Amino acid sequence: MGKLLIVGTVAFDAIETPFGKTDKILGGAATFIGLAASYFKTDAAIVSVVGDDFPAAYLELFRDKGIDISGLEVVGGAKTFFWKGRYHNDLNRRDTLATELNVLADFKPVVPRAYLDADLLMLGNLHPEIQLDVIRQMEKRPKLIVLDTMNYWMNHTWDSLLEVIREIDVIVINDEEARQLSGQYSLVKAASMISAMGPDYVVIKKGENGALLFHEDRIFFAPALPLEDIFDPTGAGDSFAGGFSGYLAETENISFSNLKNAVIHGSNLASFCVERFGTERLLDLKELEINARLAQFRELTQFDIEMK
Amino acid sequence: MGKLLIVGTVAFDAIETPFGKTDKILGGAATFIGLAASYFKTDAAIVSVVGDDFPAAYLELFRDKGIDISGLEVVGGAKTFFWKGRYHNDLNRRDTLATELNVLADFKPVVPRAYLDADLLMLGNLHPEIQLDVIRQMEKRPKLIVLDTMNYWMNHTWDSLLEVIREIDVIVINDEEARQLSGQYSLVKAASMISAMGPDYVVIKKGENGALLFHEDRIFFAPALPLEDIFDPTGAGDSFAGGFSGYLAETENISFSNLKNAVIHGSNLASFCVERFGTERLLDLKELEINARLAQFRELTQFDIEMK
Repeated sequence: MGKLLIVGTVAFDAIETPFGKTDKILGGAATFIGLAASYFKTDAAIVSVVGDDFPAAYLELFRDKGIDISGLEVVGGAKTFFWKGRYHNDLNRRDTLATELNVLADFKPVVPRAYLDADLLMLGNLHPEIQLDVIRQMEKRPKLIVLDTMNYWMNHTWDSLLEVIREIDVIVINDEEARQLSGQYSLVKAASMISAMGPDYVVIKKGENGALLFHEDRIFFAPALPLEDIFDPTGAGDSFAGGFSGYLAETENISFSNLKNAVIHGSNLASFCVERFGTERLLDLKELEINARLAQFRELTQFDIEMK
Repeated sequence: MGKLLIVGTVAFDAIETPFGKTDKILGGAATFIGLAASYFKTDAAIVSVVGDDFPAAYLELFRDKGIDISGLEVVGGAKTFFWKGRYHNDLNRRDTLATELNVLADFKPVVPRAYLDADLLMLGNLHPEIQLDVIRQMEKRPKLIVLDTMNYWMNHTWDSLLEVIREIDVIVINDEEARQLSGQYSLVKAASMISAMGPDYVVIKKGENGALLFHEDRIFFAPALPLEDIFDPTGAGDSFAGGFSGYLAETENISFSNLKNAVIHGSNLASFCVERFGTERLLDLKELEINARLAQFRELTQFDIEMK
């Protein structure tokens, strides 16, 4: 079991889907990553920031899940980062209705001393300068640095983003972001270009169409689990990153075949996330449920074909 | 090795992609299905129609591939079915620039006597009344009837289409067609609704996003092989149907696990088809190439995860 350091937002989300809407509920990249990763045997910590409007019950929730929050700064007299969005009917597109940076605007991350030697650093979607700042704070180079980012940073902070990408081992982005980052339409070519920018491993998420793992000339594909209903896609990508990095921190094995498994575990956690609003479904999963769904992934993908 | 009877169009296609354009070249659903199926040990025949503008060299090509064309009617003084289309830059959408039914307008299929007891009947995309006509001609009920169809028939010949769907065992359609046919957005629900209309097996093709096989409460997924370049998607779906039905005719085993393999073989043949214009790539594949790519499918999808 390894030390997993998670950097990212802890936020309030207000979500509208075709099936309902929420008031401000618990959200943020680091939140989903941490909750998903909590189903693996790791020593995990979150570095993030909230305002003093953030409920103590949510802090308690992280602690209950065994997540160290000594690096979760609470800023007095300030408000927590807030995002409000509305999904279209097909759930594949969404409009952002509000983004209030609040405490995030001046966030200076401080890595707790006990995690300066983390084995795995999971950089959730955030300003690349904050991600770089955390990398520079580490006392020794983590065995694996995983980056999640998005198109916003490609449009606004290109140079810093490239600097982060040079420093990391695994990048996790979606298909449109991979195309934008590389200028290539073909995802095979995009992954190759992106790998040349730094990371040994490129994971391209395609939402309901699964995820691809690229490493040198090898490719692995994990489908999303076909579900009768998808209720709320918010946090699915972060849950993927959490399952992925949680499994790798637990197993401390960064071979290609183990990264395949990490992609399956990431897809597995994401499949739960989308079944309810926000983090709801990730709060108390049972090991039995998780394993039953892993068995479904196996049934879904494994075949036994005889070569001639 | 079983008898495989293929019904569908034999046509001229004129294709424009972002990478080039063709004059009239060999095309049509039955053509792609037959060529893809020819890589399996079957006794295959095509039932279709062409005009006397159809080159003898193309007829010879079918014979060279071991495909019986005694049921391919050549109508004197008439022209072969012609389709012209142009693909958008992403290759996922296309505009039909011309459709000339010609000989297809009055086509009355006649199943050759030697194939009235075919083991597998593959109904390529065509007017449902023609598909029904062929089913009625069979002397004994084939062990498996596979149907490919498209949204055009849902819009224009709904009742006949439903009648065909009642008669068949496997339906092969794309995701948008499955949604239109069922009125369900979720593909899991769509497959369940469609299965209730008749077929025991529902295959939903998602183009570059792979294909799903549904049977009772079981689901199997095969990705499309990630390719550096897709040159021309024309015939990919039909090549899938050809690989699928060719493999099943060869193995004569219609268990779920063998249908999984058939989906992989279909995806494999489709991955070759899209590498060149029209049928070009399907004309002389080597067994080594086909097996090497099957190994790629295995590497792409197989993992070995330990349950806790």
